[in-house]
Amino acid sequence: MTEYFTEERSVEAVNSRMGQGVDPRLAEVMESLVKHLHAFAKDISLTQEEWELAIHFLTRTGHLCHDERQEFILLSDTLGLSMLVDAINNRHPPGATENTVFGPFHVEGAPVRQMGEKISLDGKGESCLFIGRVLDLDGNPIEGARIDVWSDNSDGFYDVQQPDIQPKWNNRGIFVTGADGVYSFVGIKPVSYPIPDDGPVGQMLASLGRHPYRPAHTHYLITASGYQKLVTHTFVGDDPYLESDTVFGVKNSLVAPFERVDHPTVWRSDFDFVLTPVENRQ
Amino acid sequence: MTEYFTEERSVEAVNSRMGQGVDPRLAEVMESLVKHLHAFAKDISLTQEEWELAIHFLTRTGHLCHDERQEFILLSDTLGLSMLVDAINNRHPPGATENTVFGPFHVEGAPVRQMGEKISLDGKGESCLFIGRVLDLDGNPIEGARIDVWSDNSDGFYDVQQPDIQPKWNNRGIFVTGADGVYSFVGIKPVSYPIPDDGPVGQMLASLGRHPYRPAHTHYLITASGYQKLVTHTFVGDDPYLESDTVFGVKNSLVAPFERVDHPTVWRSDFDFVLTPVENRQ
Ligand SMILES: [Fe+2]
Ligand SMILES: [Fe+2]
Repeated sequence: MTEYFTEERSVEAVNSRMGQGVDPRLAEVMESLVKHLHAFAKDISLTQEEWELAIHFLTRTGHLCHDERQEFILLSDTLGLSMLVDAINNRHPPGATENTVFGPFHVEGAPVRQMGEKISLDGKGESCLFIGRVLDLDGNPIEGARIDVWSDNSDGFYDVQQPDIQPKWNNRGIFVTGADGVYSFVGIKPVSYPIPDDGPVGQMLASLGRHPYRPAHTHYLITASGYQKLVTHTFVGDDPYLESDTVFGVKNSLVAPFERVDHPTVWRSDFDFVLTPVENRQ
Repeated sequence: MTEYFTEERSVEAVNSRMGQGVDPRLAEVMESLVKHLHAFAKDISLTQEEWELAIHFLTRTGHLCHDERQEFILLSDTLGLSMLVDAINNRHPPGATENTVFGPFHVEGAPVRQMGEKISLDGKGESCLFIGRVLDLDGNPIEGARIDVWSDNSDGFYDVQQPDIQPKWNNRGIFVTGADGVYSFVGIKPVSYPIPDDGPVGQMLASLGRHPYRPAHTHYLITASGYQKLVTHTFVGDDPYLESDTVFGVKNSLVAPFERVDHPTVWRSDFDFVLTPVENRQ
């Protein structure tokens, strides 16, 4: 008698169906996916109605995705999957600056600026001097490190979210270190903002008693020859959402000091970035 | 020091974020979902590129969904999830006819016909007398059982897939049993057909070395007062896809005899349906 699909051997029934010559990595991923998907359904005895609700949720999530909105990424972010993938793939050694999520608001081609220059061009928000060094694991300065920085404006929006508002490239810039490894620029003390919450993911968060906010942060993408790319943020330490970042991006080591100095900028934030050599990749 | 998200405590970091007063069943489902989703990503060390591919796959799947196409259901079907949910929620006692997937092609409001009447109205395909009884677990006939039956035509399409082709309600009908519990009708020996495979799910099947076919089957939805609804198929025993149904719907007990009789119909298929009393629900 043929062994057909049963509740007990459901995983085996599906995974044994794979043909010959399947890409080995694809086979590994799909076998694990089926195993965990079925274990989930069994653990909670998923009902027919809940399954229908899930199909409907995924469908609405897909329908909301377009060029300027990626609801599946928001879903991944709010379920901690994006941070988990980031963590698995960026295990830096002790002493190196930790990674965090890239986020959807990076734009290629920001202007390269002189050290110390302003990136906040709209005159709004509380000005802040961002200053520090790019170092190797031994504390030596890295020359020629390219620091791509971006943050929201004082209303909590990235420039790409308000394409009609001038000036262009507000709160964005690229800085390249000299022999001393030092960087500095003037931006604003960033503000916390909600991820787009008018879709299925926002409804999910609400039904889970969760808010949609990210604590205030400044994004960095730092590259240097011979070193691993560093994608990270620095966070404002006193932000009320620091312990409840809706995408789980905060790490202790990324919480930066913001010192009130009032002149010439309102705030000053000191932070050194430590890069991992390429050969350290795990 | 606050305990933020780490690779090690990723599940706890996400699930501890849930607020007060969340629906207990929703909390249970989401906690399990996060646990299994993270375990999957960890087990296979999901890469950033694979994650992006998954986001893109889900987005394309969502974009393909519309009133006449549900690509997420096809995904669930081909990963064995639909059959698993069916199995979990329809554990019939020994001796009762087993459930299988409902499928997307049922239509409400098919014509009620006299016992023995024809449902195959286009004159195509090999005619078949379907005959048997609807019984309780003790073998007693059930009077007033409502048998809603549907199958594809000889080209492998359900009438709803060819809305412009006459006659209406081809290969569909409803029959109500009398005191003897007997049913009979004339349809066709159904043929195997592929699920829609021109989308992401079809691409997934191809990359897994799987075909998109379902073995030939006739659908039944049987209801009777005091008994659990039975959603099932009977399968044609010599179908080449019987052991590789792309949606895993086949069960040994649902493989029906198709005997060549040549007169008055080409085939005859005998099958008794045994219903489970409502009070047996598990
Ligand atoms: Fe951000
Ligand atoms: Fe079917």
